[in-house]
Amino acid sequence: MRTLKSFQRLVHELSKLPGIGEKSAQRLAYYVIKNKEVYPNALAEALLEVKEKLNTCETCYSFTEEASTCDICDNMHRNAKQICLVEDPFDIAQIESFGKYHGKYHVLGGSLSPLQGIGPDKLKIQELLERLKAVDEVEEVILALDADLEGDTTALYIAKLLEGTSIKVSRLAHGIPFGTDIDYIDQRTLGRAFENRIDI
Amino acid sequence: MRTLKSFQRLVHELSKLPGIGEKSAQRLAYYVIKNKEVYPNALAEALLEVKEKLNTCETCYSFTEEASTCDICDNMHRNAKQICLVEDPFDIAQIESFGKYHGKYHVLGGSLSPLQGIGPDKLKIQELLERLKAVDEVEEVILALDADLEGDTTALYIAKLLEGTSIKVSRLAHGIPFGTDIDYIDQRTLGRAFENRIDI
Repeated sequence: MRTLKSFQRLVHELSKLPGIGEKSAQRLAYYVIKNKEVYPNALAEALLEVKEKLNTCETCYSFTEEASTCDICDNMHRNAKQICLVEDPFDIAQIESFGKYHGKYHVLGGSLSPLQGIGPDKLKIQELLERLKAVDEVEEVILALDADLEGDTTALYIAKLLEGTSIKVSRLAHGIPFGTDIDYIDQRTLGRAFENRIDI
Repeated sequence: MRTLKSFQRLVHELSKLPGIGEKSAQRLAYYVIKNKEVYPNALAEALLEVKEKLNTCETCYSFTEEASTCDICDNMHRNAKQICLVEDPFDIAQIESFGKYHGKYHVLGGSLSPLQGIGPDKLKIQELLERLKAVDEVEEVILALDADLEGDTTALYIAKLLEGTSIKVSRLAHGIPFGTDIDYIDQRTLGRAFENRIDI
């Protein structure tokens, strides 16, 4: 197996995928070979089609296909007064599948992480400010960032930037996830749930 | 995201890979898009190269590259008196990396499974018999099949086929894996370890 260069090359490429180690990549490559008649071409074509057709939306930086702006940005029925800030386009898919948010989005492309050298210039923050200025009808920016240190830092940074403007900045609530035993909750989550407790 | 046909197509193709569900496929597809400049082409080329170059060895049914027979079959220094029977080419890689076996191999392409409709005609059993007849120097067939019901069935079937010939049929020992606590061993393994106990 070690002498099969084409096989090794495929394993090498597959092991670059997130969560795929050397062993898993071998298993995937083996599947490819087992289905050699149809699968390699089908996957290769799908890869090249994505490369060719998928673009970044010029307004919100999510994905768009065969157009310069995405379906959500183009949709006149969506509430342009709200912009939901997310880290990546997948978060949009998640929020859309829940189906209760009808505003627009803005993809940051990550979160601030001084340790990893990700500063404000690496994210679409400047683009957000310009968009807010250009549109001039946004009333609320909803931060739907990951509930971790980087998400917190980014949220604070953006809240500071928008301080003094007429735009309200809100953030998704942190607390105990639905269906969870208090016993199994970590200290941080419990701490936030206490802090953000609401009157009933 | 649901309207992005090229993205959905890529997710669909990736989710055919073993162990990759819809969610994982989305994550992989997202990686592909994030690395759109280089990665789709690199992976597509590797896929097409494997399809083009990888063949099945005419003798042992393992993989071979740019030749009709594989390196192991072509290697005159290997012991042609022993043939190790495995289910798939990956088993060969595993046995080779252990480095103590110096005979030849024969890939069955699976194991007998009446429930899944895999009979002897779906495996390279007839080809094994023809090979044994043609070579006429094989003294031992070592069954390195998976330690499950299908492996057992296949082993018995092949042992029966070679009954009455001069060829010795052996099978890898089943028992307690090295480094394992007796407490954690399942009943079947323990049963086999008792059955096959050896004098010391």
